[in-house]
Amino acid sequence: MKYAAPINDMLFVMNELAGLEDISALPGFEDASAETAQAVLEESAKFCGEVLAPLNFLGDQNPSVWKDGVVSATPGFGDAFRLFGQGGWQGVQHLPEYSGQGLPKLIATPCVEMLNAANLSFALCPLLTDGAIEALLTAGTEAQKQVYVPKLISGVWTGTMNLTEPQAGSDLSQIRTRAEPQQDGTYKLFGTKIYITWGEHDMAENIVHLVLARTPGSPDGVKGISLFLVPKFLVDNDGATGERNDVHCISIEHKLGIKASPTAVLQFGDHGGAIGHLVGKENHGLEYMFIMMNAARFAVGMQGVGISDRAYQKAVEYAKDRVQSRPVDSSSKHPVSIIHHPDVRRMLATMRAMTEASRALAYVAAAHCDLAHRHPDGNVRIGHQAVYEYLVPIVKGWSTELAIEVTNLGIQVHGGMGYIEETGAAQFFRDARILTIYEGTTAIQANDLVGRKTVRDQGAVARQLLVGIDATIDALRSGEGGAFSSMRRHLAQGRKSLAAIIEYVLDKSQTDPNAVFAGTVLYLKLAGYVLGGWQMARAMIVADQRQKEDPSFYGAKIATGQFFAEHLLSQAPALEIAIVSANGAEGVLALSEDQF
Amino acid sequence: MKYAAPINDMLFVMNELAGLEDISALPGFEDASAETAQAVLEESAKFCGEVLAPLNFLGDQNPSVWKDGVVSATPGFGDAFRLFGQGGWQGVQHLPEYSGQGLPKLIATPCVEMLNAANLSFALCPLLTDGAIEALLTAGTEAQKQVYVPKLISGVWTGTMNLTEPQAGSDLSQIRTRAEPQQDGTYKLFGTKIYITWGEHDMAENIVHLVLARTPGSPDGVKGISLFLVPKFLVDNDGATGERNDVHCISIEHKLGIKASPTAVLQFGDHGGAIGHLVGKENHGLEYMFIMMNAARFAVGMQGVGISDRAYQKAVEYAKDRVQSRPVDSSSKHPVSIIHHPDVRRMLATMRAMTEASRALAYVAAAHCDLAHRHPDGNVRIGHQAVYEYLVPIVKGWSTELAIEVTNLGIQVHGGMGYIEETGAAQFFRDARILTIYEGTTAIQANDLVGRKTVRDQGAVARQLLVGIDATIDALRSGEGGAFSSMRRHLAQGRKSLAAIIEYVLDKSQTDPNAVFAGTVLYLKLAGYVLGGWQMARAMIVADQRQKEDPSFYGAKIATGQFFAEHLLSQAPALEIAIVSANGAEGVLALSEDQF
Repeated sequence: MKYAAPINDMLFVMNELAGLEDISALPGFEDASAETAQAVLEESAKFCGEVLAPLNFLGDQNPSVWKDGVVSATPGFGDAFRLFGQGGWQGVQHLPEYSGQGLPKLIATPCVEMLNAANLSFALCPLLTDGAIEALLTAGTEAQKQVYVPKLISGVWTGTMNLTEPQAGSDLSQIRTRAEPQQDGTYKLFGTKIYITWGEHDMAENIVHLVLARTPGSPDGVKGISLFLVPKFLVDNDGATGERNDVHCISIEHKLGIKASPTAVLQFGDHGGAIGHLVGKENHGLEYMFIMMNAARFAVGMQGVGISDRAYQKAVEYAKDRVQSRPVDSSSKHPVSIIHHPDVRRMLATMRAMTEASRALAYVAAAHCDLAHRHPDGNVRIGHQAVYEYLVPIVKGWSTELAIEVTNLGIQVHGGMGYIEETGAAQFFRDARILTIYEGTTAIQANDLVGRKTVRDQGAVARQLLVGIDATIDALRSGEGGAFSSMRRHLAQGRKSLAAIIEYVLDKSQTDPNAVFAGTVLYLKLAGYVLGGWQMARAMIVADQRQKEDPSFYGAKIATGQFFAEHLLSQAPALEIAIVSANGAEGVLALSEDQF
Repeated sequence: MKYAAPINDMLFVMNELAGLEDISALPGFEDASAETAQAVLEESAKFCGEVLAPLNFLGDQNPSVWKDGVVSATPGFGDAFRLFGQGGWQGVQHLPEYSGQGLPKLIATPCVEMLNAANLSFALCPLLTDGAIEALLTAGTEAQKQVYVPKLISGVWTGTMNLTEPQAGSDLSQIRTRAEPQQDGTYKLFGTKIYITWGEHDMAENIVHLVLARTPGSPDGVKGISLFLVPKFLVDNDGATGERNDVHCISIEHKLGIKASPTAVLQFGDHGGAIGHLVGKENHGLEYMFIMMNAARFAVGMQGVGISDRAYQKAVEYAKDRVQSRPVDSSSKHPVSIIHHPDVRRMLATMRAMTEASRALAYVAAAHCDLAHRHPDGNVRIGHQAVYEYLVPIVKGWSTELAIEVTNLGIQVHGGMGYIEETGAAQFFRDARILTIYEGTTAIQANDLVGRKTVRDQGAVARQLLVGIDATIDALRSGEGGAFSSMRRHLAQGRKSLAAIIEYVLDKSQTDPNAVFAGTVLYLKLAGYVLGGWQMARAMIVADQRQKEDPSFYGAKIATGQFFAEHLLSQAPALEIAIVSANGAEGVLALSEDQF
């Protein structure tokens, strides 16, 4: 099963929609030119296509195996992970002082997309390691950073995030894992953590667990949670590893997909206590965790984009290859490849439009993140940070919901073959299904979008984005033909629906929270379609100006934009109706528990 | 994993929406009273809940196994199948002269729903056997009927449908299997058939394969296909079985779901020729196959309804049980069961509304089928047959597309637990995924809806249904409150969109077939939402009149109807836009093959 990274589309989005030129102009990013970006993407595409993609199906057929507490990764994964580390791929966006490449998130993001498109199970290990790196860089002591971060970036060690417990899933206030302070300044941890991705494996020399736990006498709820670093093998001050720590994998899950990535149940302290180090300040664990979660949530959004693109590529390949039935317009007396059948074409166009829109929105978000970190003007930084934070739950929630639809269509394009596991389309569907659940379900993303991202600033960022959409609606006048007028009509309607819902959310969030929260996921989807549609519209405008340079590429941008407008953005009014219908929450909450 | 058949809802639909009273008044159905119906449903519920439901997860964990041409079903399936046969469940709607119970399809349909809700893999065996029975009753000689049908109805033998070949999936014109006439009037068959459900197994004494094949010199394409009966063990004129026939299972597929049901590759004639008997007239095979396919397609639609209901029941159970997070309206300081969270409620309401609407539409279709067969007036029969045939592709296509959405939401309600196979929610998602593919993909259903069911009669049946919807829109005036005005508004809008699309299809089908076929699946979905919404509206009107008798049950009908209107029927205009957008097929077909 091949994977060819869509480098041209990635570069188009980076250069034309996400403003790579502006990012390259930021202090510290002087080397991040369009040429550098292209070179990095080409190298990444080579590694992902040649090393990781061929292991993907193998990982599904030969999942990680647990035996007596030891987890063996799928054969070939360990070697690939070493190449990954040696290639510097863990450190694309991390600081050079910790052995990173120091490139913008805008360049790291397509690399992450490729990684996930090539092999979602594999990509989870770097994803979680990135989370651990972020946490240490945010809240660790200088000594912790020096000892742990370079090892994580070089791929010698990997990292994990330990949040969930059996009774504490989405609700972290219920965490019970204890951390008892010791005389030497360390802590001993006791408790059970579940759903720990790559929580135990044999691909690296050590595993650095970042663990949420409570110290004695800490406040109830989320205000009493601290963050600890618990290495699998104890680490001395020089970074040398020693004794095995008291954290053990007691089982791994039997899952619907991402089977090569072990999902561990970790037991801390069954043999005297797992030795851990406090990261940052006591009782501030959730705050640090949110920093890593924002990064991880964005990355999961990229998993959605990546697997969508992979499923799309596979479906296109099959549709061009499989010959079946004569064309409905009688243009041939013989059976043709199924890509000539209008409904197959519609499915492929849907997959493509969803993938391109979610990619564009994510890359634009990545650029805001870079500007938020590197822009010389503090106020500008704050502004971009706010936009980035507004977009993260949408990139995570919307892209992953789309990934389920895209991989579902991918099976349908294959017909009966799609249901046979050997074909591989089913694996994408199974793998994608976790994406709307982990790192916060779509509802959790939507609650974040409403609470922290819309209500807290009284809709300031949301309204600012609407102003940007207005400018694009205006600019669409310049394009000729039905595609532009169609996009203009549907983007204007979508903008209107989104604006109405933002006001509805602001209006009702205090007085009728049930009404708002009954529709938060729909608000998230609406925002995704409108903001994604906005990027498709911007792409059309650029394509219109450039069309002569490459009629095939730019013509496809215009056609795909039109399709997005008519088939996807056109759903905005129905989402608005569902959210604000006269009886809003009454409609959703009308039934009593007994009536279900 | 429990399954409790929703008998009250089934009886409500049968009595109030599908008109069981009228069906009981038909000649031959005098015994099919509401009381009989209830008694049959209760027995069926007991059998499905106690015998079949507990085997469902087991079948997923221990799929059928192929070894040296022999297929062993999951342990327990064989015993269950014997009980199924002895209980008379194969024969609910078949004629008493062939050992059937002679009940209306309207009563058989909820039994089929239960069977599929309890155990989709198991239910496939009776589903295919029904197909074989239909084929023989339609086209078989009296001798064939007498020898084969009672054995099939009693469950001593099972049946299969052999259509697909590696090069002939949706396009049956490409079938190559040969049938060579022998001196004794039999034929010898040679060829390979794939995707043969329960094509080989150890649950019955014999397997009766119905096989499409070509006789020497037959015309090319679908006009040269004949239907043959090929028993696994040869059968003499008295029905006694003898020698093993030359049809062998050379492998079974490794599938995404329905793992307990073996999907066989059957090789005919590798050892001298498989002995077969012509069924009906030579070269009329496809015509007979369409008769069985209409029945089978309806049954697959019921698989969609059944698995949706099962997934809904499981999600409700979990949502009532799982405690997580405080309510958003601060009505409790403690975590509550997640059914109290608005977004969980929205997901459950969506699952429920989709399941109820697809059930109602299917049962109404079943009643039309009964009227088409038994009404004393020939013209009335023809009218009902036409409506039934219009509804079959919608019941099949729409209910199964919904089943994917419902089972997908079922996983989401479970959060992380949903992704763990032991939970069981993932199995429903995997099992459901085949339903939009086999017995004709959704696109094939949609082509049928357009070609044979809308264009052929120049929209007569479609327009007749619109008149029925108008009467309901009018009757909704009688209901008080927001639910009724909301349903009225959205049903009227949906009816308008559907009417526009029917005219669009009629207008363009000759002049611009690509434009029509680019939107056929969307037309099918639109018809599903509008006709399903119509049934929900009819249910609301009945519930309004009866509310005092059972406020909980009827109140739920009104609330669920409102939810359907605002969250699902409200999508109709977007579907209309997607189909008729100025550039219709240009939008979908704008890209050349190379641009994908």
